[in-house]
Amino acid sequence: MQASLLITLTSDFGLDDPFAGVMKGVILSINPRANIIDLTHGIASHDIREAAFTIGMNYGFFPEHTIHVVIVDPGVGSRRRHILVVTDRYCFLGPDNGVFSYIYEKEKHEITVLDINAEHYFLRKDSSTFQGRDVFAPVAAWLSLGIDFRTFGDHITDYVIQPPQLPKSLKNGLRGEIMHIDKFGNAITNISRTDINNLVRSCKDHTPKVFLGKRAVPLKGCYAEGKGRNLYAIINSSEHLEFFVNLSRAAGTCNISIGDKVELRLVR
Amino acid sequence: MQASLLITLTSDFGLDDPFAGVMKGVILSINPRANIIDLTHGIASHDIREAAFTIGMNYGFFPEHTIHVVIVDPGVGSRRRHILVVTDRYCFLGPDNGVFSYIYEKEKHEITVLDINAEHYFLRKDSSTFQGRDVFAPVAAWLSLGIDFRTFGDHITDYVIQPPQLPKSLKNGLRGEIMHIDKFGNAITNISRTDINNLVRSCKDHTPKVFLGKRAVPLKGCYAEGKGRNLYAIINSSEHLEFFVNLSRAAGTCNISIGDKVELRLVR
Amino acid sequence: MQASLLITLTSDFGLDDPFAGVMKGVILSINPRANIIDLTHGIASHDIREAAFTIGMNYGFFPEHTIHVVIVDPGVGSRRRHILVVTDRYCFLGPDNGVFSYIYEKEKHEITVLDINAEHYFLRKDSSTFQGRDVFAPVAAWLSLGIDFRTFGDHITDYVIQPPQLPKSLKNGLRGEIMHIDKFGNAITNISRTDINNLVRSCKDHTPKVFLGKRAVPLKGCYAEGKGRNLYAIINSSEHLEFFVNLSRAAGTCNISIGDKVELRLVR
Repeated sequence: MQASLLITLTSDFGLDDPFAGVMKGVILSINPRANIIDLTHGIASHDIREAAFTIGMNYGFFPEHTIHVVIVDPGVGSRRRHILVVTDRYCFLGPDNGVFSYIYEKEKHEITVLDINAEHYFLRKDSSTFQGRDVFAPVAAWLSLGIDFRTFGDHITDYVIQPPQLPKSLKNGLRGEIMHIDKFGNAITNISRTDINNLVRSCKDHTPKVFLGKRAVPLKGCYAEGKGRNLYAIINSSEHLEFFVNLSRAAGTCNISIGDKVELRLVR
Repeated sequence: MQASLLITLTSDFGLDDPFAGVMKGVILSINPRANIIDLTHGIASHDIREAAFTIGMNYGFFPEHTIHVVIVDPGVGSRRRHILVVTDRYCFLGPDNGVFSYIYEKEKHEITVLDINAEHYFLRKDSSTFQGRDVFAPVAAWLSLGIDFRTFGDHITDYVIQPPQLPKSLKNGLRGEIMHIDKFGNAITNISRTDINNLVRSCKDHTPKVFLGKRAVPLKGCYAEGKGRNLYAIINSSEHLEFFVNLSRAAGTCNISIGDKVELRLVR
Repeated sequence: MQASLLITLTSDFGLDDPFAGVMKGVILSINPRANIIDLTHGIASHDIREAAFTIGMNYGFFPEHTIHVVIVDPGVGSRRRHILVVTDRYCFLGPDNGVFSYIYEKEKHEITVLDINAEHYFLRKDSSTFQGRDVFAPVAAWLSLGIDFRTFGDHITDYVIQPPQLPKSLKNGLRGEIMHIDKFGNAITNISRTDINNLVRSCKDHTPKVFLGKRAVPLKGCYAEGKGRNLYAIINSSEHLEFFVNLSRAAGTCNISIGDKVELRLVR
């Protein structure tokens, strides 16, 4: 693993408090040349599932060797471990609570996970409420200086996995759910383009139809194809099925919530 | 046009989703030395007019050769073009929907507009929902590496102009409107200092008076001159007439909305 | 004082308007190598007390020679001065309204304060509504280029101090108050670990008990030790007493507001 100057931050800190800013101060105190990019600090408070989905969908858009720091950490200060996940192309730093479950899934053949216990790299050893600042920021900074990742702790294999919520197979179909509502009110599901392609391939003379609850929803190729205030589906930029209303907020207009059931059914 | 390392982003993405963060990942994957500054991601969803006003008022505060990327794009994925606008001092990248109308107005003598169609520079050619990531981010990055702007597409002259909402002349006055409510509740109009100066020059023995609807509003030189909860007008930092209540939210206190009519009348 | 490339921004500008972005454009126009970090732009509008507390708790996490710019400035454009505060390790730029009161307190032995009046460094001399852009951004940029701080103005000693709200001594105790509610709904007091240690040392056979109003609140070592929806206290990452409800919003759940009284009482 080469040194990298690029560190991303993902958290549920929001931007109204100085939490993210202070982490940057700590990083730059150790490595003044680090380039720190906010992926987002808008994860819902304590929502490990949303954090896992967000980093899982987006880490691959960053340059090789980027260090991704993810701090959504309801167990901060308890005995849960701090981990460093090293793949072929990236490093990930965060609490051992499942925030990296999509990474484990996608990169399963080439993954090393360490329990970070080399406390001399920490800003404070007794940190109990802000380990983003006291543990993860300094470790990210030292890593970005090119220090061998093996010096930060011990190899573990019993890290916490929160199995990604993948869609379930139905007879002639798939059942997924709404995972995220974005800023535009679009409702993103856990059904991927690959899931849809596999389903279609299995039954070539059928066409897939999308249902949100009992409502059939037509599939479109771009937002601007949507007419009026009607609900449509699209394969979005993360390659997942998404519901939208053109120029309006689908989630509000159509009363869609995280967890709502979505089905894809093959019909002749 | 020289290479620039500075790229600004303006969008309606908000900061709760990873959209802006991912664009930065794509840019830095192509040009690790790029310096990316958020102008704002707080434009109201799909509000081309607000985006045009925001970039139009602020692009000039950035260093020469800055690449300004503006993604407010209700037509994403439709046949609307992606354009590159090159002026003497800056480059602008965004959808061809009028977001650069103020630039066309201010820089009219020295402007080249290209339809970006060199798809080999794109991250994905079939992008339909997130061209900020798939088209504009990579093109900005390649531009920032010093690639000749002419290689990105073909010169066009029929780009979309949304005429900036300029104030209308009245007999002995001007009629403008509220364009933007800022974070402090200040209400910014489309009447500029130049508009006021021209008006006054035309009638030297008269004094301009400001009216919001039928209400006469006194003009002050700084916010702290405002007394109590009274409404005042000021020439603001963008050289536009603005309404304020000192230490309070004028828009809320005085029920001011975008589109409200404002008049400047010359009186003896 | 050495040149620094690191400049932090703290303000009440929010992120929906382009104010912070434009300040960065002005800084980079003067010093393209400056590294600008947002500490936060989420200070409540015009809240000098919150700004003072925020910069006071966090400036020390940044590298030596960092230039901290703090713009919470209800008197912008009035005759209040613009000041430059130089300590052993940092520079601070902002309005002379008390935003640096914690700095004066903490760094009292080694402080120089200048009234910034060298107007040739300003972007605009007649700026009345956005001195963050017109005065503080350019002065920060010139400072970051290594220009001697003494050239920016005249030494003063009568700068405005808003005495930090420190807890008051009681017979066998301390009375403090709630200073800030953070993004997680945690309620932070002005009682520091040092205050508590001094109190305990004064009366060794007693134990301190925490009261919010009349309610006794148990002290915990980390958030995860909190059970159910009960209210607890903790010494937080800024070394201050804080109230929390594990995985919930203490301020909302328990109706806590800024200014609420908190007591620490010694009991046998």
